Amino acid sequence: MLNKLVIIGVGLIGGSLSLDLKRARLVKQVVGVGRSTANLDRALQLQVIDIAETNAAKAVHDADLVFLAIPVGQMDGVLAHIAPALSANAIVTDGGSTKADVALLYRKHLADSLYRCQPAHPIAGSDLSGAAAARYGLYENKKVVLTPLAETAAETTAKVASLWQACGAQIVQMSPTEHDAVFAAVSHLPHVLAFTYMNTILARSDAQTCLQLAGSGFRDFTRIAGSHPEMWRDIVMANRTALLSDLAAFKQQLEQLTAQLEASNAEAILQTFLAASKVRSNWQ
Amino acid sequence: MLNKLVIIGVGLIGGSLSLDLKRARLVKQVVGVGRSTANLDRALQLQVIDIAETNAAKAVHDADLVFLAIPVGQMDGVLAHIAPALSANAIVTDGGSTKADVALLYRKHLADSLYRCQPAHPIAGSDLSGAAAARYGLYENKKVVLTPLAETAAETTAKVASLWQACGAQIVQMSPTEHDAVFAAVSHLPHVLAFTYMNTILARSDAQTCLQLAGSGFRDFTRIAGSHPEMWRDIVMANRTALLSDLAAFKQQLEQLTAQLEASNAEAILQTFLAASKVRSNWQ
Repeated sequence: MLNKLVIIGVGLIGGSLSLDLKRARLVKQVVGVGRSTANLDRALQLQVIDIAETNAAKAVHDADLVFLAIPVGQMDGVLAHIAPALSANAIVTDGGSTKADVALLYRKHLADSLYRCQPAHPIAGSDLSGAAAARYGLYENKKVVLTPLAETAAETTAKVASLWQACGAQIVQMSPTEHDAVFAAVSHLPHVLAFTYMNTILARSDAQTCLQLAGSGFRDFTRIAGSHPEMWRDIVMANRTALLSDLAAFKQQLEQLTAQLEASNAEAILQTFLAASKVRSNWQ
Repeated sequence: MLNKLVIIGVGLIGGSLSLDLKRARLVKQVVGVGRSTANLDRALQLQVIDIAETNAAKAVHDADLVFLAIPVGQMDGVLAHIAPALSANAIVTDGGSTKADVALLYRKHLADSLYRCQPAHPIAGSDLSGAAAARYGLYENKKVVLTPLAETAAETTAKVASLWQACGAQIVQMSPTEHDAVFAAVSHLPHVLAFTYMNTILARSDAQTCLQLAGSGFRDFTRIAGSHPEMWRDIVMANRTALLSDLAAFKQQLEQLTAQLEASNAEAILQTFLAASKVRSNWQ
């Protein structure tokens, strides 16, 4: 049971965690922190949080647990701001999309308190954002990746894991580097490909006709191209090395397919499509 | 009002057209043709068709209109088979995903009857197939592209257009070449990229971990990678030239983004993502 949970960034991720923990009676009071008072008012009105605060340092006073549910690019500034104000026993965790860079930020700002820092990544993002997007049960059967630092205390990891499990999530534990390699492949690369594909369409002289005639395959394939540009700039910059390696691997596969098509090698193309279609059809 | 409509290929596309035309009382009798008696039995049971027939040549006897709702790769054989059996006034149309190659097939098999041939492409495909996938209202507010031959009579085009419009579809008319260029860009390229992306994941040593941790962005981005491999082999082979040109354009955009990432040019990356995200968010 937490006496005081501080959620910095009251959107889909932070707001949904708050709702589930409140419903499970695992927290007495949730303080939501944000820069937009309109979003905080909405969060209060929807009972996503109990108290709203625009000053993060003031909010974290006496907190048992602080959850940074903000884009990775904002964490440096926020950690610098709250570090001196944290109480001695406060656990600090986050929901950032990259983990090696976030580990460095914990080291930079909380060097003496790493035993109570638990970097995390709940796999439940979407193109929705803001407090109004928060909902009960978002984490039911979703994965939450925990990437403990060498210094993170076992009790810290256990405490953070138990909160996510109370929301129905499954815990996966790995190193920050392993996390960043996997998410470069399954999330960052697809986003980059979707953005790039949309720009390829945009550059055509018949772009308007294309957009008018595009159907449901296009809709699903490009959904993530509508994602938040600043947030994704931060993510690809933070995970640059892994992403560049995955881009190279993708280009190699694309060259192979192009060569098969140039050679009108229908059988090779069929085998390429079969392999992909089989994995995708068997997935989940 | 049609006395006898013959649907060759009773799946999502052909079956849904039949359902809507029957409900609108625009057809007296629908004969469904297929190779699988199990699928035809299902179509009869669901009242998608009135009569089932496995012999296409026998089925088209006395038909007012024949709709080829089969993969493009099967059209050569089917047109060869039915051409001698068509009645003198039968309109022939199709739902093929490529149009320049289908135009050549009409010329090959119905050279003397091109005035009653109307190549078409309803934009309502999905990863579902079979008679059980047919449903009322599939074409409501969907586009149907008509690509008349130079020889196609105006009345033929008007007749086919009016049937689709009765199902709630919007008619778009263009040349086969223009059609194939647009659909290489908005449909064939995304399918090829999705297949290629899935194979890139498959080739990783941590492929299983990747598939276990992949979230909703991955799910939507790769949905079309589960599409029918043989059908898509036929489509990319039929539209090879346009697709190769689009692949080149995509690769150029991807090189640009890779160079921005290699140079850690965060501002250029942001502009790239902003342009894509803006178009996608404003789409529809």
